[in-house]
Amino acid sequence: MSEEKENIQFQLTDELIEKVEQLIEANNGKELQQFLSEFHYADIAEILDELDQDEAVYVIKLLDSETTSDILMELDEDIREKVLQNLSAKEIADEIQELDTDDAADMISELPEERKEEVISNIEDAEHKAEIEELLAYDEDSAGGLMAKELVKVYETWTVAGCMRRIRGQAKDVTRVHSIYVVDKQDKLIGRLSLKDLITAKSEQKIAEISNSNVDSVNVHDDVEDVAKVMQKYDLEAIPVLDDNHILVGRITIDDIVDVMKEEADKDYQLAAGITQGVEADDSIIDLTKARLPWLFLGLLGGIGAFIIMEGFQEAFNTYAVLFFFTPLIAAMAGNVGVQSSAIIVQGLANDDVKGSVNGRLIKEMLLAALNGAILAVFLFLFVWLYIGEMDKALAISVSLVAVIIIAGLIGTFVPLFLDKRGIDPAIATGPFITTSNDILGILLYFWIAKMILGI
Amino acid sequence: MSEEKENIQFQLTDELIEKVEQLIEANNGKELQQFLSEFHYADIAEILDELDQDEAVYVIKLLDSETTSDILMELDEDIREKVLQNLSAKEIADEIQELDTDDAADMISELPEERKEEVISNIEDAEHKAEIEELLAYDEDSAGGLMAKELVKVYETWTVAGCMRRIRGQAKDVTRVHSIYVVDKQDKLIGRLSLKDLITAKSEQKIAEISNSNVDSVNVHDDVEDVAKVMQKYDLEAIPVLDDNHILVGRITIDDIVDVMKEEADKDYQLAAGITQGVEADDSIIDLTKARLPWLFLGLLGGIGAFIIMEGFQEAFNTYAVLFFFTPLIAAMAGNVGVQSSAIIVQGLANDDVKGSVNGRLIKEMLLAALNGAILAVFLFLFVWLYIGEMDKALAISVSLVAVIIIAGLIGTFVPLFLDKRGIDPAIATGPFITTSNDILGILLYFWIAKMILGI
Repeated sequence: MSEEKENIQFQLTDELIEKVEQLIEANNGKELQQFLSEFHYADIAEILDELDQDEAVYVIKLLDSETTSDILMELDEDIREKVLQNLSAKEIADEIQELDTDDAADMISELPEERKEEVISNIEDAEHKAEIEELLAYDEDSAGGLMAKELVKVYETWTVAGCMRRIRGQAKDVTRVHSIYVVDKQDKLIGRLSLKDLITAKSEQKIAEISNSNVDSVNVHDDVEDVAKVMQKYDLEAIPVLDDNHILVGRITIDDIVDVMKEEADKDYQLAAGITQGVEADDSIIDLTKARLPWLFLGLLGGIGAFIIMEGFQEAFNTYAVLFFFTPLIAAMAGNVGVQSSAIIVQGLANDDVKGSVNGRLIKEMLLAALNGAILAVFLFLFVWLYIGEMDKALAISVSLVAVIIIAGLIGTFVPLFLDKRGIDPAIATGPFITTSNDILGILLYFWIAKMILGI
Repeated sequence: MSEEKENIQFQLTDELIEKVEQLIEANNGKELQQFLSEFHYADIAEILDELDQDEAVYVIKLLDSETTSDILMELDEDIREKVLQNLSAKEIADEIQELDTDDAADMISELPEERKEEVISNIEDAEHKAEIEELLAYDEDSAGGLMAKELVKVYETWTVAGCMRRIRGQAKDVTRVHSIYVVDKQDKLIGRLSLKDLITAKSEQKIAEISNSNVDSVNVHDDVEDVAKVMQKYDLEAIPVLDDNHILVGRITIDDIVDVMKEEADKDYQLAAGITQGVEADDSIIDLTKARLPWLFLGLLGGIGAFIIMEGFQEAFNTYAVLFFFTPLIAAMAGNVGVQSSAIIVQGLANDDVKGSVNGRLIKEMLLAALNGAILAVFLFLFVWLYIGEMDKALAISVSLVAVIIIAGLIGTFVPLFLDKRGIDPAIATGPFITTSNDILGILLYFWIAKMILGI
């Protein structure tokens, strides 16, 4: 806490980056070391993200591994990959030695297959190595893939005083002690304690007397998204992870869950916008094209489909050209309604808010779409009638609009529910997928109904 | 931990709700109390969300206020509102007495204006009352509006042993002790301690010797989204909040930040889908209509705009009807590209990833759109040429497509950057807003370019 800390956030300025670059160019390691020592490792990672590869490697080799291991974990994934390419297996193993087991396993899993073994064999601490190898065996989307081995564990038969002594030893390896887990002789989890409980207890009390047997836990094979939901719902800051025999094997902390939630939200947002997950504004044009082009191609095919449908109705064009001028309106409304209804369902599914039957949902969406459609259709009817002065056309267009909106709403509701039941991420249903199918279907329906009403 | 706890999540079944409803109907308070005592308050809240209003009020009045205050905080906002309407000011004040100051202030702020005063005047604990009134004075989107007054504070001059004694007293009021904040005589924050530090220190040491002066903090007026970024970046589980004189006034914990992040992500997702923030799948048709209709109306106006444009080109294209059949394709591509590019920018702005100049962004998006557009145009050209056999039309349509995609990409990039600079939430730029404007502009551009190329 000092007076100059007025800004809530560290500001990454061009001057700052320039200063670092100058010190690197001048090969002034000592001053650079001193200069960077004032920054948090997460801030240094932001600086490194802006440097070129050689400069970043220079900084990593310059600072001590206690700091650089944390910096490496905070770097952009593609920058980290490049920096690690420039470090020897021994150097990477030294960084890993400084990391908690969960971060260590993450870093190793990003390495190319052939380097993994080499790095692991260079880890000196045998226990750390064994724990990392254990974590690497779990699916990365499972609780086991997210958990750390570092935790504070006590036996129910210990006294508070004995427990305090042992904790003083164990706690050194654990960055943050949220809960102390109480286990029986077989290492099965039977309760938990907070440090607060321990501090406020009498030193001769037995752990069993003060521990809380009501402890939430997850299985090592549980999906991380489910773990996130549990921790969020019950406001937990750490949760113990058990194997199938209820033996305590690790713990997951809220900071990792925050990252999972952020990634999940970003992914869903991108999918809804027609972008394959995981790109950032600063990625290369090639990467961005890979993420965007497939969805645009889908839209193009949809547009070609719309063309073929309209061409099929071409004969009507000569006397009813005006109908064709409303196809963008029909397509836009079908798309918008579909995206709205699918977004509500996708979000409801993610938040476990969608209860009750599929039929109930569809009936509700039908009523909703009918209401919205009717209001919009009245407006459109009046506009067309007043503007072109032909009531039959106005009626045909407006009635079609209502039908299109209802069908679009139903598709938008049904598709994500269907995908979810099939075990497919419903988030892909919002965005170009639903827009494109609704565009085509909407236009087809529009011409059918208009043709019927106008008796063409 | 018991054997039956195989399911990671509490399952809300129809049988469970039925059982609760039956016990309420039978007015069997004792058995209901016993039955519900096995559930976590967050689970009871889920059950109550499914009951009708009278049943929910029955349960709230039945259970003790220590549990019900937590249940009330977990209820859906609209259900909570209804339940609170059925409680007297005195009863609400009793619930508030059990809550931490941050939750208490949140609950009071949701009450109708005329009840707020009445409830506050019924809070018996004068200190709790004063603290809640202090919190109510802050903007709800500021750190002050999110923080709690409950925290553990020690003076730098204390010894470890003295500190432990005082903490045993203070900690009883604080659900979770993350950090112990060290202050000087004026209550200015000068450092922090973890419980772990305290446990591992010698009892005669002075707090000043073992405290860490490198403590992150936020100002009471900082925006909660900025607080969330800081806590996420630095992996903090709690952050102290200071007033303008650096005096410690409260603290924010990660569980509240998790909720802020979730709300923010849900809001952005809904905005991108054309839904005004804050509705859920289970809201009423009227509420859902209010959230969805305005955006659909915008789409309708866009469609009418497209109609007017196409009508204007009607004479020019009497012999070129085929051009009209491609307007849905053009509109869809303009919309999709606009949504993609705006989503990338909106997300980048939210994550502070968008650095560098606006011009640089626009040039990059132009290149990206040109590349994507060119690939798609080649495909479209071949299709049209082979399908309708007229090369000039195929060329006109394809060239227009490239131009439309570039302009759509530029608009999608520029609008959120512009809104952000103006202090408007750029998230509104993704979705119907950008789709609609891009639809109209795309169609206009398409006919202009086609007219030029075909020499009409």
